[in-house]
Amino acid sequence: MKRILSALIFSTLFFCIQAQQDKAFVDSLFHIALTNGRAYEDLRFLTKNIGGRLTGSPEAAAAVEFTRQRMEAYGFDTVWLQPVMVPHWVRGEKPERGRVLSNTFGTIDLPVTALGNTVGTGFPGITAEVIEVKSLDEVLELKEKDVKGKIVFFNRPFDETEFSTFSAYGGAVDQRGSGPAEAAKKGAVAVVVRSMGNKINKVLHTGMTRYQPNVPKIPAVAISTYHAEELSAMLKSDNELNIYLETHCEFLPDKLSYNVIGQINGTEFPEDFIIVGGHLDSWDVGEGAHDDGAGCVQSIDALRVLKLSGYQPKYSIRAVMFMNEENGLRGGRKYAELAQKNNENHLAAIESDRGGFSPRGFTTTGTDEQEKMIQGWAPLMFDWGYYDFSKPGGGADISPLAVQNTLLIGLYPDSQRYFYIHHTPNDVFETVNQRELELGVGGLASMLYLLDKNLEKKNKK
Amino acid sequence: MKRILSALIFSTLFFCIQAQQDKAFVDSLFHIALTNGRAYEDLRFLTKNIGGRLTGSPEAAAAVEFTRQRMEAYGFDTVWLQPVMVPHWVRGEKPERGRVLSNTFGTIDLPVTALGNTVGTGFPGITAEVIEVKSLDEVLELKEKDVKGKIVFFNRPFDETEFSTFSAYGGAVDQRGSGPAEAAKKGAVAVVVRSMGNKINKVLHTGMTRYQPNVPKIPAVAISTYHAEELSAMLKSDNELNIYLETHCEFLPDKLSYNVIGQINGTEFPEDFIIVGGHLDSWDVGEGAHDDGAGCVQSIDALRVLKLSGYQPKYSIRAVMFMNEENGLRGGRKYAELAQKNNENHLAAIESDRGGFSPRGFTTTGTDEQEKMIQGWAPLMFDWGYYDFSKPGGGADISPLAVQNTLLIGLYPDSQRYFYIHHTPNDVFETVNQRELELGVGGLASMLYLLDKNLEKKNKK
Repeated sequence: MKRILSALIFSTLFFCIQAQQDKAFVDSLFHIALTNGRAYEDLRFLTKNIGGRLTGSPEAAAAVEFTRQRMEAYGFDTVWLQPVMVPHWVRGEKPERGRVLSNTFGTIDLPVTALGNTVGTGFPGITAEVIEVKSLDEVLELKEKDVKGKIVFFNRPFDETEFSTFSAYGGAVDQRGSGPAEAAKKGAVAVVVRSMGNKINKVLHTGMTRYQPNVPKIPAVAISTYHAEELSAMLKSDNELNIYLETHCEFLPDKLSYNVIGQINGTEFPEDFIIVGGHLDSWDVGEGAHDDGAGCVQSIDALRVLKLSGYQPKYSIRAVMFMNEENGLRGGRKYAELAQKNNENHLAAIESDRGGFSPRGFTTTGTDEQEKMIQGWAPLMFDWGYYDFSKPGGGADISPLAVQNTLLIGLYPDSQRYFYIHHTPNDVFETVNQRELELGVGGLASMLYLLDKNLEKKNKK
Repeated sequence: MKRILSALIFSTLFFCIQAQQDKAFVDSLFHIALTNGRAYEDLRFLTKNIGGRLTGSPEAAAAVEFTRQRMEAYGFDTVWLQPVMVPHWVRGEKPERGRVLSNTFGTIDLPVTALGNTVGTGFPGITAEVIEVKSLDEVLELKEKDVKGKIVFFNRPFDETEFSTFSAYGGAVDQRGSGPAEAAKKGAVAVVVRSMGNKINKVLHTGMTRYQPNVPKIPAVAISTYHAEELSAMLKSDNELNIYLETHCEFLPDKLSYNVIGQINGTEFPEDFIIVGGHLDSWDVGEGAHDDGAGCVQSIDALRVLKLSGYQPKYSIRAVMFMNEENGLRGGRKYAELAQKNNENHLAAIESDRGGFSPRGFTTTGTDEQEKMIQGWAPLMFDWGYYDFSKPGGGADISPLAVQNTLLIGLYPDSQRYFYIHHTPNDVFETVNQRELELGVGGLASMLYLLDKNLEKKNKK
């Protein structure tokens, strides 16, 4: 009994000393991030000197080169480009136009933005009657004769009572993702979707839609929440109201692009990996500051901070700039495919792709044991505003690594501002706060450290 | 034993049912705040139609009238103005000028903003040699002959490793508050203070300084953190560098102004009060959006939301718009003085004056029992992002109520962005996010409800 007790005391004591040492080291990583961070200046370059980085654009290529150079300048052990063929959708040079044509209300301007990956209307555009629905189910229930030749207007707002704006987004985004295909099945000629944003304002949110095989590809645009409310009100008085749409987007042939990877070699198990990343591409309407310039520069800086701390990781640590998350996920898929092919064992992958806002915690998708382990680290970061490690989730780009049973982790920042900015012209450098960004870097570096220290090497075969 | 056990089970069950009911009611208050809030539109009026509201200004008077009218329109039981004589400091109409005059570097523009309540230099300004210090202590240690006739430059930066930016502010603000008086004691002719802000940028932060009796009142200005770094670097090469300063601020005679109070009458103890408030005055350089338009409109909306919920409070609940927090605290002092005089028993007072950002919790200063009780409510608001109820603190305007042993509470929002905005031209409506503001309203309404339900009436005498 005495022996058990002293073993217990010893191990508790050891745990406490261990936890204190971890806490001190985590604090030191945050200190470096907050006083010696590079993420904010890197983001300034990425947004202000390069700008929006739609897959296939010259800006996306410039961002590949810029992040490669930064990681080399920061002295990572290896930095390289991983080729990946990407889709090449372009918005087109000519203005996008929308207009309400009503016998009751007259001719009213309706600002629109094309959804990503859609076909354009071309010249002279499309004019058709409008039918409003609130959901995909409503479209499924409609008779073909009620939809045929019309423009379907998807107008389901965000549920503002959701604390998580990502949940509210998830509850509305099927309209944008599948709305055009479902409407086309019923004979619609175009689709107008309420912007995926909180509250009522005039901001236009783009984002990808998905066509289906053997279903006509019809043009699709978003309108602002303000104009969605206005259009809905007009339709109540004039159900013969028409809309005119003109867009010029199109697909060009696939193009060669790259994931950009920087690595710090592991001292014990260099062939096993822990990675952290974001996606380098962004929509073209803004500067891709929060989505996801922030995640990219944070990932790079997390490695730099870890290096500066003097910590020598057991496993190889990588920062990965994924290409083409927004309209294809080709980069994420390619990375996982090559990891499998090259027998690269990925123990854990972290993604930062929920905006560069004040962090509140991490999401985790792994085994029960892994999730419990990570939740146990919450007290180590509480002083830095991280308190919630309870939610599931990883990130889009790292999700294909699930085939390796990789532990998937997502940085979980405050989400209240995100859907005012996401996929809009508001996604600019000025909306990112330096300290909020840096607190994310501190958390990512700490998570890399804790994973490296605590994850056990698994034998893949 | 059986009886004790069933009593225990019964009371646990009762507690659970009670907690569930409280949780449901708190949720309903947040739902109202997020779907039917008025705070954001009220803030738009206060900032965009009225603007900065320096004590004694026509804008401050307009804000008194506006908030009175809003509270009447929202149907509060009583709305009234509480007269208070306030200081009337004006910045002056003529431009504020600063200039570095150096034989080494030449003549360089140095943007300045006068500190609140300072005297101006008048025309033709002051030109003098500069001596840099990092702290008040450093000034105390200097010999009079080294300071006499010079401009003292206080250049202690924020400690960026503090997670709480309010702590970083607290660690630097004595330079602004007492720097001019301490420098004057040693014979300085003026003071230049590094802006009270995080990181390096060109933003000018004003704020109050305090002269001392029988010490000469010398002009004092702030310069940006960017220019503070630049000036410091220049002083290293040229310690005979001069600065030219010109400001035209002055004190006019005290003026009549008002605290604005709206009340919902208590059903059981109408003579006992729980209040929530912010300060209506703001600095003149911005629109007073976060500091503290946000706290004002949140307080009003918290009462409106509570009313809309149908909850009938036991105690009388007030929203109080305090006047003159920024450069005098006359409103807060007058309110407490009249509360004492009129035998108004204040059980609890909440203040929102830390910016309209995403809430993270509440601070509390009360008895151990009270603090423990409030910490027990944390789980009721966790789903709304409130998790930290552990910190002490109330608010400046409510602090004079401490003489009544009033339980003092502060809304505790995310503070990372605050000291980029506080007391600057950046303090405008556009920097406030609607959902973040409304989550504060939900929390204030919930706190009012929980206090009203759980606080026991105390007999003052």
